[in-house]
Amino acid sequence: MSVMEKAVQMHKEYQGKVAIHSKVPMRDAYDLSLAYSPGVAQPCIEIEQNRSKVYDYTMKGNMVGIVTDGTAVLGLGDIGPEAALPVMEGKAILLKHFADVDAFPICLDTKDVDEIVETVKRIAPTFGGINLEDISAPRCFEIEDRLRQECGIPVFHDDQHGTAIVVGAGLINANKIVKKDVASMKVVINGAGAAGIAILRILVQMGYENIIMCDTKGIIYEGRVEGMNPIKETIAKISNPKRLVGDLSDAIRDSDVFIGVSVANLLTKEHIASMKENPIVFAMANPNPEITYENAKEWGVRIIGTGRSDYPNQVNNMLAFPGIFRGALDVRATDINEAMKLAAVEAIASLVPEDELCEEYVIPKSFDMRVAEEVAKAVGSAAIETGVSKLFAQPISL
Amino acid sequence: MSVMEKAVQMHKEYQGKVAIHSKVPMRDAYDLSLAYSPGVAQPCIEIEQNRSKVYDYTMKGNMVGIVTDGTAVLGLGDIGPEAALPVMEGKAILLKHFADVDAFPICLDTKDVDEIVETVKRIAPTFGGINLEDISAPRCFEIEDRLRQECGIPVFHDDQHGTAIVVGAGLINANKIVKKDVASMKVVINGAGAAGIAILRILVQMGYENIIMCDTKGIIYEGRVEGMNPIKETIAKISNPKRLVGDLSDAIRDSDVFIGVSVANLLTKEHIASMKENPIVFAMANPNPEITYENAKEWGVRIIGTGRSDYPNQVNNMLAFPGIFRGALDVRATDINEAMKLAAVEAIASLVPEDELCEEYVIPKSFDMRVAEEVAKAVGSAAIETGVSKLFAQPISL
Repeated sequence: MSVMEKAVQMHKEYQGKVAIHSKVPMRDAYDLSLAYSPGVAQPCIEIEQNRSKVYDYTMKGNMVGIVTDGTAVLGLGDIGPEAALPVMEGKAILLKHFADVDAFPICLDTKDVDEIVETVKRIAPTFGGINLEDISAPRCFEIEDRLRQECGIPVFHDDQHGTAIVVGAGLINANKIVKKDVASMKVVINGAGAAGIAILRILVQMGYENIIMCDTKGIIYEGRVEGMNPIKETIAKISNPKRLVGDLSDAIRDSDVFIGVSVANLLTKEHIASMKENPIVFAMANPNPEITYENAKEWGVRIIGTGRSDYPNQVNNMLAFPGIFRGALDVRATDINEAMKLAAVEAIASLVPEDELCEEYVIPKSFDMRVAEEVAKAVGSAAIETGVSKLFAQPISL
Repeated sequence: MSVMEKAVQMHKEYQGKVAIHSKVPMRDAYDLSLAYSPGVAQPCIEIEQNRSKVYDYTMKGNMVGIVTDGTAVLGLGDIGPEAALPVMEGKAILLKHFADVDAFPICLDTKDVDEIVETVKRIAPTFGGINLEDISAPRCFEIEDRLRQECGIPVFHDDQHGTAIVVGAGLINANKIVKKDVASMKVVINGAGAAGIAILRILVQMGYENIIMCDTKGIIYEGRVEGMNPIKETIAKISNPKRLVGDLSDAIRDSDVFIGVSVANLLTKEHIASMKENPIVFAMANPNPEITYENAKEWGVRIIGTGRSDYPNQVNNMLAFPGIFRGALDVRATDINEAMKLAAVEAIASLVPEDELCEEYVIPKSFDMRVAEEVAKAVGSAAIETGVSKLFAQPISL
């Protein structure tokens, strides 16, 4: 039986993956009097008097809402909120398994940006954080930006930042092998969707100065006319400082790194041959990467990572989001800011021990249970340092 | 330590009561490939092609949203959505414990009727049913009516119907003892809030023809001017056929049944003395009833029920809502209609065995685990009979 057939069988057998569980005993009338009437009135009264006590007495502080409108699910596109639910349930049990974060799927029957923002704000009292998931670009940018400003709890769009954080970690370790200088490296990102743009942003913060971004119309540059929009105007401003013009081949020529969030089997032998020495490739098209592992090795790629679990260096956002939410919730962060994302990058990179680091191991394994814990610590510390923790005081600035 | 202190301690120790639980194993990469990528794509594709499969492959078919705006919580009033969360979590674990229904609290940061309705409709894809909770009257009536029409999944406002169903069941059994004729009995309902109105409606359907409803201005009758509103106009139309006028004492005189959803210690010895033989009283003000059990017994009440767990005949909506949702979900009902509510009334009444029936036992015990199962069966059958089950065909009408 194929994985697909087996997956259908399993979903049908269990009727989904997420269930509700009571943390407290319910043996008799006394238990009931504590969990429900009349005892429950006392925590209610105390929360009414001091709203922050909702974190002490309820599930809120450990509960993440996984919010989607079903418009960009896996590689399937706009399949609607009901069809998105199996993915959201999967995400929920990953958060539980890797980081003991409770998470609940909210699949929205609207695609309107304003309606999504107002709906999430209205249901926010129940949640300690919001994970946006599988919302199509460019709407996902505005939705995340507005919710981060208006919601008061941490909001994180995993499709953007999760992948970006793991790629950033992979690049740190790859550079330990090829020993190149970040500032002078030429990096090509192919694909200007949510993940591609987030990768660009995090690499800029990591000190990369020469990043070329391509979409289906070729290299994005300031002044390009065809196929531009406000997001791509922003991309043009923060990338491609030499205003390189041309197609993907022109971008790849003399580059050090290729990062693909685009389509399968795009890279040719000639592309690889045109790159600088010790090429690094993260090819993350799903389910088939921009270049197969076998071709990459044969054509001279030094370090290759893909989205696939059956090859080395899997770029899997499972390495990022569980620990990020664990860390944010642990310190009651009001935001997941850039410093916290960069802290996650560093933490993930550091989990590959120096003496095991090699071409085939620049990214930790997806089932490495140390990852979420270390990411959580780093993210929580960064939240405190940047003053967005409500639980621990901001350090005195010097 | 008092129940209140102990309840606070327990809520703090567990950080709330509701947690998320994975129904499927997550031991290794293979498990992950079924629950998440790539296997999860197949159930997604099948749901996209046939939306009703969301009930086969996801949590939706067993998941109830417990929706509140925090405006009428317990006896505490409008305490806001965060302070309402402990009650909603309690409700969730009751549904789990008594009927294996998964339920998740949604506490809304809006009190606007239109906004509540549209928000619930937008989040409905995740849920198989909606339990409205602790929403103040009269807004709760419009919200329930509109959601029942517009939502496509069963919607049930427990504060209205839960209490009404249990009172109805208690009255059936009480009448087996006092052997009076329903149609000729005079019933007084004191309190024209959500529960009082629902009690009126269900008793009308049960064949009671002479029901007098009182609010703080006295008897409600057609043509009354003071303190009327559209809901009370409706009440006046379906109750008080003889247009009785006066205060609560006038209502109670020569009555057979007093039902209180009002305030503590309201009933006097004179009130009880003015009632017909074998008076029946359901006094459900919380936490202290309209008449104490001891006074009721001393002053000649034949059958007394209250909301309290420490006296006989506890009118507890726990007897109703778990089985009602279990039954509605089991047959994939699109509504919880009047026939289903009446079926629940009959089922609850029938659970007191004829040979144990007595003045002190007209309502089953709250921890009687048979109740939810029997209510579920009856409610599911009524759904099928009335053609609102999507899983079982409507019987051919004769």
